[in-house]
Amino acid sequence: MTDIATRMWNHGWRLDPIVRSLLDTDFYKLLMLQMIRNAHPTVDATFTLINRTRSVRLADIIDEGELRAQLDHARTLRFDKRELIWLAGNSFYGEARMFAPDFIAWLAEFRLPDYELRTVDGQFELRFAGPWTHTTMWEVPALPIVNELRSRAALKGRGRFELDVIYARAKARLWDKVERLAALPDLVLSDFGTRRRHGFLWQRWCVEALQEGLGERFIGTSNVLLAMDAGLEAIGTNAHELPMVLAALADDDAAIASAPYRVLEEWQRHYRGNLLVVLPDAFGTAAFLRDAPDWVADWTGFRPDSAPPIAAGEAIIDWWTAHGRDPREKLLIFSDGMDVESIERVYRHFHGRVRTSFGWGTNLTNDFRGCDSGGGDALAPISLVAKVVAANGRPAVKLSDNPAKASGPPDEIARYLRIFGHEGREDATVRV
Amino acid sequence: MTDIATRMWNHGWRLDPIVRSLLDTDFYKLLMLQMIRNAHPTVDATFTLINRTRSVRLADIIDEGELRAQLDHARTLRFDKRELIWLAGNSFYGEARMFAPDFIAWLAEFRLPDYELRTVDGQFELRFAGPWTHTTMWEVPALPIVNELRSRAALKGRGRFELDVIYARAKARLWDKVERLAALPDLVLSDFGTRRRHGFLWQRWCVEALQEGLGERFIGTSNVLLAMDAGLEAIGTNAHELPMVLAALADDDAAIASAPYRVLEEWQRHYRGNLLVVLPDAFGTAAFLRDAPDWVADWTGFRPDSAPPIAAGEAIIDWWTAHGRDPREKLLIFSDGMDVESIERVYRHFHGRVRTSFGWGTNLTNDFRGCDSGGGDALAPISLVAKVVAANGRPAVKLSDNPAKASGPPDEIARYLRIFGHEGREDATVRV
Repeated sequence: MTDIATRMWNHGWRLDPIVRSLLDTDFYKLLMLQMIRNAHPTVDATFTLINRTRSVRLADIIDEGELRAQLDHARTLRFDKRELIWLAGNSFYGEARMFAPDFIAWLAEFRLPDYELRTVDGQFELRFAGPWTHTTMWEVPALPIVNELRSRAALKGRGRFELDVIYARAKARLWDKVERLAALPDLVLSDFGTRRRHGFLWQRWCVEALQEGLGERFIGTSNVLLAMDAGLEAIGTNAHELPMVLAALADDDAAIASAPYRVLEEWQRHYRGNLLVVLPDAFGTAAFLRDAPDWVADWTGFRPDSAPPIAAGEAIIDWWTAHGRDPREKLLIFSDGMDVESIERVYRHFHGRVRTSFGWGTNLTNDFRGCDSGGGDALAPISLVAKVVAANGRPAVKLSDNPAKASGPPDEIARYLRIFGHEGREDATVRV
Repeated sequence: MTDIATRMWNHGWRLDPIVRSLLDTDFYKLLMLQMIRNAHPTVDATFTLINRTRSVRLADIIDEGELRAQLDHARTLRFDKRELIWLAGNSFYGEARMFAPDFIAWLAEFRLPDYELRTVDGQFELRFAGPWTHTTMWEVPALPIVNELRSRAALKGRGRFELDVIYARAKARLWDKVERLAALPDLVLSDFGTRRRHGFLWQRWCVEALQEGLGERFIGTSNVLLAMDAGLEAIGTNAHELPMVLAALADDDAAIASAPYRVLEEWQRHYRGNLLVVLPDAFGTAAFLRDAPDWVADWTGFRPDSAPPIAAGEAIIDWWTAHGRDPREKLLIFSDGMDVESIERVYRHFHGRVRTSFGWGTNLTNDFRGCDSGGGDALAPISLVAKVVAANGRPAVKLSDNPAKASGPPDEIARYLRIFGHEGREDATVRV
């Protein structure tokens, strides 16, 4: 029996919306948003979409009108009552009342701001300008929208069984990974795959599969909606936009140099415990550790995000040890392009010496390698990011441990490199 | 939205029936039945289930009560009006009115006869005794019922995602085969996998996948219900039970020796064209060809079913040539444990020299190799058959080209071997 009402309902949609809830975002966006609203309510910040995989001409694949329709639909969304009650009433990282009542009340009125979109030479120029408190919230819906529109384009016109087999192969592929990871007894893993996911439903399948296959070792997901729906922990702390904006707002080189630590001071006024995780690589991890005040060593952990994971982890362990802290009580979170091989390698390398946790992203939620016999690279993930490029009209800069991930105008990058130095920066191919 | 009515309906079943239609059978059973009813309406024939894979103790895996419940459910089935109209009105092998009106009327009253079931030493003794016109119809429902009960037992208690991945892997596995077979431009393939299928829904998926993946090269299915529902040709001709029963009824050795040809005479009084396919191996293909009258060479084709396919095909081609027929106008149907490798090999060997067609059975509808990481061999197909063992109280014998497939009392096998000879019989492992 077909449920006729459901079928009519499904057919009645003007479009098949990719993002259907403002909670379909990464948890760190909400944590950062609360702090931005408290500490920087008047700052303007501009974000743009950057497709680092230039060879993939997105605008030749995705119809600009469809992209507009999806972005417009996302702008119609509001946090609904159930979502706000959950944000207010749920414990995150073991803490009740993580979000203050006035912030929840403010969220109830929140909607995504306008966007600017044009097509230039086969790529989309997608730009979000306005109050940081609003533009920051575009990062995550914009990325999965573009990625899923690309997946849909790649699969348009395929046969019903061909499609079934593509997903069957992807499921088999992921489960093979789950079976390998299940052999690591002390694994701590979470889903960081929202932004680069193949699609929402596929991310949900992946998350629920990890829940069943890894049990307690799968500690949660960065996706707030999936966390709520699946009864999982919402996972995440903070991102590069915080030191990038604070550095951009700084009036002199000394203020730029201290921006990464001022971010941490602001952060620890808002959050504590396991949320005290340093993201050290915005302007190079070596520079960060060299100049970091001693109190940074009291934080729970570090998330090295652009340096080779084992080298970065060793440098951070050395730094903890030099500051008289016991690394076995500390946490390293690895989240840069991880896959099962690198998770196994890094896990084994650090096992027993430091607590480790893995944020598994693109290779969890968008690995269709070998799944689409006839489709070429149409389903291969691309390196798509949404980065802050300006704050209050001043350019924002990221150096990163990997020069391929740097962003900002060349003269500003040169200036930041004079301030922070080149130490430890090493080019590596950016795949995802 | 969940369709509440459907959910209630699903929950209300006393059991989940494996066979839900009397058309869920192989087409050759209906063709043979019409002939049996016309030519041998008073013959009694006893069929029994034989598990050649003795190492699998079926009765330790399948609950006898559940087996009874499924067999009892099959006995409640009748051909419904739509099914009878389709049988009467559809063309089979290009012929209208294949089934006579009085046969269709008789089918309307048909129900499966009683069965005898007991458990002995970990195996089921399942026996169908009575009029050949009724007991013959148990073969196919009995085999898929036992096979699907075994699949269900193997998968009981598995997690939702684990199950999803098992089927995902099986789909990926089958589609890999489809992609290989799609490279054979003149392939003619049909589904012969009803009896050994993993389950009904899985067979349906396989059949529909072949329809999409191979197009016109997939000519149909032996399963009458699937043929009707999917708009495919129903495929099949005749089986060993015909010469076995006729030989059992024979009063002397000469009558036994001529039984295989009397079957063909009866058959060609009922059917013609592409239905004129010889199954030569009941008492050995070499003996069959040695003693065959010339008119047998006018038949459309042969289905070698237990000899190595290339050797058997060559022997038949030689025989056609010796009888002055052009093999390029003839048909060889291969259906004995075929899989993609043997299909490719046999296809290439005979390409351009004779028309070939492949009946793909167990390795189509029950290949879960490598799909169930933790389950051992619980999903591996077994060699389960339902064979006629007696006709009017006399033992029925099959010699086969493969002594491992022989059946009958030892003294009767010895007698048949004296009549037909040992020529060309060669032991081969029976896997499925």
